[in-house]
Amino acid sequence: MAKIPPVKGTRDFYPELMAQRNWITDGWRAVSCRNGFVEYDGPIFEHLQLFTQKSGPGIASELFSLTDRGGRDLAIRPEMTPTLARMVNQQINALPRPIKWFSMPRCCRAERPQKGRLREFFQWNADIIGSDSVLADAECIYTALDYLRSVGLTAEDVEAKISSRSMLAALLVDAGFAEDELDPLYQLLDKKPKLPAEAFNEMVEQQVPDAAQRENIMRLQAVRSLDELDSLAQSDAAKESLAELRELFALLGTMGVADYCRFDISIVRGLAYYTGPVFEIFDKSAALRAVGAGGRYDNLLAGLGGQKVSGTGFGMGDVVLGILLEEKGLLRSANTTLDYFVVDAGPELFTQALELVCQLRQQGFAAGFDYRRTNIGKQMKQAASQGAREVLILGQETIDKNEITIKDMAQGTQKTMQLEDFMAEIEQR
Amino acid sequence: MAKIPPVKGTRDFYPELMAQRNWITDGWRAVSCRNGFVEYDGPIFEHLQLFTQKSGPGIASELFSLTDRGGRDLAIRPEMTPTLARMVNQQINALPRPIKWFSMPRCCRAERPQKGRLREFFQWNADIIGSDSVLADAECIYTALDYLRSVGLTAEDVEAKISSRSMLAALLVDAGFAEDELDPLYQLLDKKPKLPAEAFNEMVEQQVPDAAQRENIMRLQAVRSLDELDSLAQSDAAKESLAELRELFALLGTMGVADYCRFDISIVRGLAYYTGPVFEIFDKSAALRAVGAGGRYDNLLAGLGGQKVSGTGFGMGDVVLGILLEEKGLLRSANTTLDYFVVDAGPELFTQALELVCQLRQQGFAAGFDYRRTNIGKQMKQAASQGAREVLILGQETIDKNEITIKDMAQGTQKTMQLEDFMAEIEQR
Repeated sequence: MAKIPPVKGTRDFYPELMAQRNWITDGWRAVSCRNGFVEYDGPIFEHLQLFTQKSGPGIASELFSLTDRGGRDLAIRPEMTPTLARMVNQQINALPRPIKWFSMPRCCRAERPQKGRLREFFQWNADIIGSDSVLADAECIYTALDYLRSVGLTAEDVEAKISSRSMLAALLVDAGFAEDELDPLYQLLDKKPKLPAEAFNEMVEQQVPDAAQRENIMRLQAVRSLDELDSLAQSDAAKESLAELRELFALLGTMGVADYCRFDISIVRGLAYYTGPVFEIFDKSAALRAVGAGGRYDNLLAGLGGQKVSGTGFGMGDVVLGILLEEKGLLRSANTTLDYFVVDAGPELFTQALELVCQLRQQGFAAGFDYRRTNIGKQMKQAASQGAREVLILGQETIDKNEITIKDMAQGTQKTMQLEDFMAEIEQR
Repeated sequence: MAKIPPVKGTRDFYPELMAQRNWITDGWRAVSCRNGFVEYDGPIFEHLQLFTQKSGPGIASELFSLTDRGGRDLAIRPEMTPTLARMVNQQINALPRPIKWFSMPRCCRAERPQKGRLREFFQWNADIIGSDSVLADAECIYTALDYLRSVGLTAEDVEAKISSRSMLAALLVDAGFAEDELDPLYQLLDKKPKLPAEAFNEMVEQQVPDAAQRENIMRLQAVRSLDELDSLAQSDAAKESLAELRELFALLGTMGVADYCRFDISIVRGLAYYTGPVFEIFDKSAALRAVGAGGRYDNLLAGLGGQKVSGTGFGMGDVVLGILLEEKGLLRSANTTLDYFVVDAGPELFTQALELVCQLRQQGFAAGFDYRRTNIGKQMKQAASQGAREVLILGQETIDKNEITIKDMAQGTQKTMQLEDFMAEIEQR
């Protein structure tokens, strides 16, 4: 029979890699919970239409689609937002607001694997729905940064670049653009940081034939601080959005993450549904794709058949994050250590050894033993190969005196004590 | 825009259901770890051929299959075993043995949803590969029962029915069946508990035309205890397997789970690759499908292009388990409680309130606050709606004295103390 390889762009989580993945997701969960988010999840596949209705039919080619026995078109989720919107819409009148949810879904995209992009990945999502307060936006940005800070990334390593879609909209309208020109403009401006200046300028010339209009865009894109915007923000809408953005930065200051945050007008987010503050988090060397990104969306739920309820949230994938943490020497693993390995000096002691193993397990300790009834030396080797922290040795002489020998595998030290005292001691651990 | 429903046979994990799922998977993980298993995972989809090579082309209609952009046939995993075999085969010479792994994969089957069977489910898998000791079989059965016991299911509630495929094979060969008649016979016998006696007998008559041979099968199926087998087990192979089965029961006794275990010759397992002890765990009312099942497989890895390495393991799904736990009143939820909700008596205190929230979070507590700057009464209501355990109230008078008021939401009691003392106190928690 032939050996069949894994599918390209997927990962096999052997125990070592799995422990790293668990360490990342454990951290996401802990930080979500302490910031008051509760966990949810949806199915791994949805009706294809849910994804095309949100993102347009063009998305279909980026999806892993399938057909069920009833001939229905389905697709594996490429992101969590459509499922979130569907679930919230289904229960909108029953859910107490604000809805403050997080999830860590496995998602799949049928794209060519490359650095930072795989065909299967995990993406932390945190969203607050049903509050239009800028406090909710601050909470989301804070939560993303709280995680990154908790794993040891400093303001020297990562930065949240923050702007506002509503402010950009107001400034563009003030500059003479029509409402229906805005969506294509967002998509254009979203490409700016990803393109060489020349290529970008060429695209602007094509999309905005009027030179004065182009000038307005370039002047906006050249803005480097909120203060520079004071003179540009003329309309009430622009002033209001600017004030909101200032408040957002003030709140992030109060929350203790100001040094991670910077205003950057080039942050636009390509998707049509963003309507307020938007942000992207990058490593400061800017060598990688965004570590996380999000923003406020007022039209997402209504766009998927629901009421007009405002929300704000973000996503953070495990792939770019993992590369960044590895580069910085910060990637850790969830604990998988065997606490105790029980060794016996002879087959006549094995029943006692097995009973001790089960007692330890009932106390909540990870405990093992050798499946081969070999000599102590070989059993000790097995204990080492399984990475046990301590080895408990049952010898005939010691057992006759109700004693047990404990070997610390890291220190190499060994001591003998009353079995009773040992059991009392570990009950305290 | 139309509301799009979820796909039939899938579940939306709203926070309440998610907390139950997390409680189940947290338990699986904890019990796996204390029994010395380490976690792994694979991709959600594989090359279709991996599944057909293991289970035959007939499996394809039970799979959610998909095609990638390169035209390759893929399928969502319906079970974990093929992925496990693929991963172990890839690294067989590098992995220290025994390989003692567990996983809790999301799996999908394109079948009609019914009670205890959904199109998407989670399945706990634990396997020990590279040891042919019956100790490894005992470990697997013990681990499955250890979990069920840990959630409060007693020997009155559930039972592991245990037999041995190698013993059955030897007995059938002793009774005159040819080796190549065995696989179809296993599939036939596996159906016995699921069919009315009449229908089963009819199938036996069809498959085994010889009356004497049928008599032999029926006599075997009537066996109720290991002792009854002593006279039937004539060949060395049969005697050896019977001795192994006796040892298995003795080990399970030493491990403290004898009362959960019973010999049942009708347990066969349909799949061709089982070669030793096999078991299925049922609720004793027998109203539900098996809660879990497994056994020893000597040919699985070789059948998927690997070396001949023996293994033993089991699977336990979350759907039947969840129904059983709910019926018994034993289904619990992972903790999602908000530890603290901070309330302020007026907008001028809000900055201090927000700082306190962030301080609490840095201590690891789940803390929240109201996004609306409303009066204390409304903020208290929000705290209750979010299920906060304690509310911390910042009032102008108390804050001037560096005091804080703490309300226990369950007790309804309230006390005021120095903010400093409070912070020192919670640092101890």
